[in-house]
Amino acid sequence: MKAIEKLNKIQNERNTFLCVGLDPDLDKIPQNYSRDIQGVFAFCSDVIDYTKNHTAAYKINFAFFEVFGKEGFGVIEKLRQSIPDNIFTIADAKRSDIGNSAKFYAKTIFEYFDFDAITINPLMGRDSIEPFLNYSNKFAYSLGLTSNPGADDFFKQTMWIQKPLYQLIIEKLADWYSVENIGFVVGATQSDYFEIIRKVVPLHNLLIPGVGAQGGDLSKLKKIGLYPSLVNVSRDILYPGISNDYQLEVIKKTSYYKHLLAIEETPLK
Amino acid sequence: MKAIEKLNKIQNERNTFLCVGLDPDLDKIPQNYSRDIQGVFAFCSDVIDYTKNHTAAYKINFAFFEVFGKEGFGVIEKLRQSIPDNIFTIADAKRSDIGNSAKFYAKTIFEYFDFDAITINPLMGRDSIEPFLNYSNKFAYSLGLTSNPGADDFFKQTMWIQKPLYQLIIEKLADWYSVENIGFVVGATQSDYFEIIRKVVPLHNLLIPGVGAQGGDLSKLKKIGLYPSLVNVSRDILYPGISNDYQLEVIKKTSYYKHLLAIEETPLK
Repeated sequence: MKAIEKLNKIQNERNTFLCVGLDPDLDKIPQNYSRDIQGVFAFCSDVIDYTKNHTAAYKINFAFFEVFGKEGFGVIEKLRQSIPDNIFTIADAKRSDIGNSAKFYAKTIFEYFDFDAITINPLMGRDSIEPFLNYSNKFAYSLGLTSNPGADDFFKQTMWIQKPLYQLIIEKLADWYSVENIGFVVGATQSDYFEIIRKVVPLHNLLIPGVGAQGGDLSKLKKIGLYPSLVNVSRDILYPGISNDYQLEVIKKTSYYKHLLAIEETPLK
Repeated sequence: MKAIEKLNKIQNERNTFLCVGLDPDLDKIPQNYSRDIQGVFAFCSDVIDYTKNHTAAYKINFAFFEVFGKEGFGVIEKLRQSIPDNIFTIADAKRSDIGNSAKFYAKTIFEYFDFDAITINPLMGRDSIEPFLNYSNKFAYSLGLTSNPGADDFFKQTMWIQKPLYQLIIEKLADWYSVENIGFVVGATQSDYFEIIRKVVPLHNLLIPGVGAQGGDLSKLKKIGLYPSLVNVSRDILYPGISNDYQLEVIKKTSYYKHLLAIEETPLK
């Protein structure tokens, strides 16, 4: 089954755009987990256990694991294997390199780890993206317009053709590759630009971070139309605040976002 | 000692712009090395051994190691530790993410692995770069104008201000950060653009890949002025062609490039 079909299937079954992001930060995980890679693994395993019946996808943020070196890479592997087969998996690694090297990054994510999807940085152009798209059963989310303040520095800069860079990137990639293989990372904090992006790529799956801790305006995005997309929530589910019952809080938060992110449009095809 | 001072010191001592790139490709390494991560480690260790008296720097390309998962990450660690202290070390990882995640990527490269420098992708803007530059004793090479064909797709696109994107990127980063902490990756294959870049950042260290296998025009670059820079050679040194004496061939090639890349200008300060 193609990755995009797997995504559509689980989203229809669970009626949600929700993606749970695994960003294990030792400064924020509950006190009962040890402050080391074993604690990170135990924490993430528990979060997967508490949320696996409510989410359509998991996004593993490589930054938080690589900081533990080879042990961290090992934990990515174990967590990936522990995610139920029917749930969509995203390697949030934002890889980019020339074709010769990108080939190896693609092999790592799609063969070694066997993720369904990856986030990629498109700045280096087509031959740096191609090795990921050559896996026709897999899926890649290119950075489209990111959620951070720095998105103003380059993404929003106007090109000679009177379009901003982010629009040029999205248009080119949508032209080069099939809707079945390419999607775009668009921050929820960029709601003022969401309407334009949805006009440019109405049929492309968007990966939308920035809800919750980063303060993205979800109601505005919902009005314009989230379909088709995945909305990622990391910190607001992982770190729901002080409580005597961490499990209950995570489940409550996940359930809240699952319903907030219900798919109201026609079923995904 | 600041990383840039270490770089200047070793370059003066050895009178060369040479950086040896470690891109261990199982399809290309000599037959006597095993086709697994142990073979990769043995191969890279030998290359370091053969070249360590002739090069100013090593650049470790993460793509070729990550494909072995946690064992690959472990080998990066062992190789990093095996490089003599006086030689400059670059983590060619091209990392990029929002500030919250970039902080962890920076910690991985500069604390866990203790590299002197990293390559970063600047597309996401200032807050995605800042965590790397906060290590004021370390150094970051931002992508400036890469060596691959895909550089035409975005880097060379003209902005509304009548400059190409690569120039906007280089100017902004040079404005934000000190010459002691930021440099730029500029492909040797982009020799037509080298003069403009040298005018924009005459004092910034450039990391120049694309010589040898990628066919960059070194003579043109030398005429314009390599100083200050590091010129990376990977494939042409690692895979010098069929020979009965691999060690001798690697040493010959390294010596050739060391002298071809001699620093003819005034000593680096």
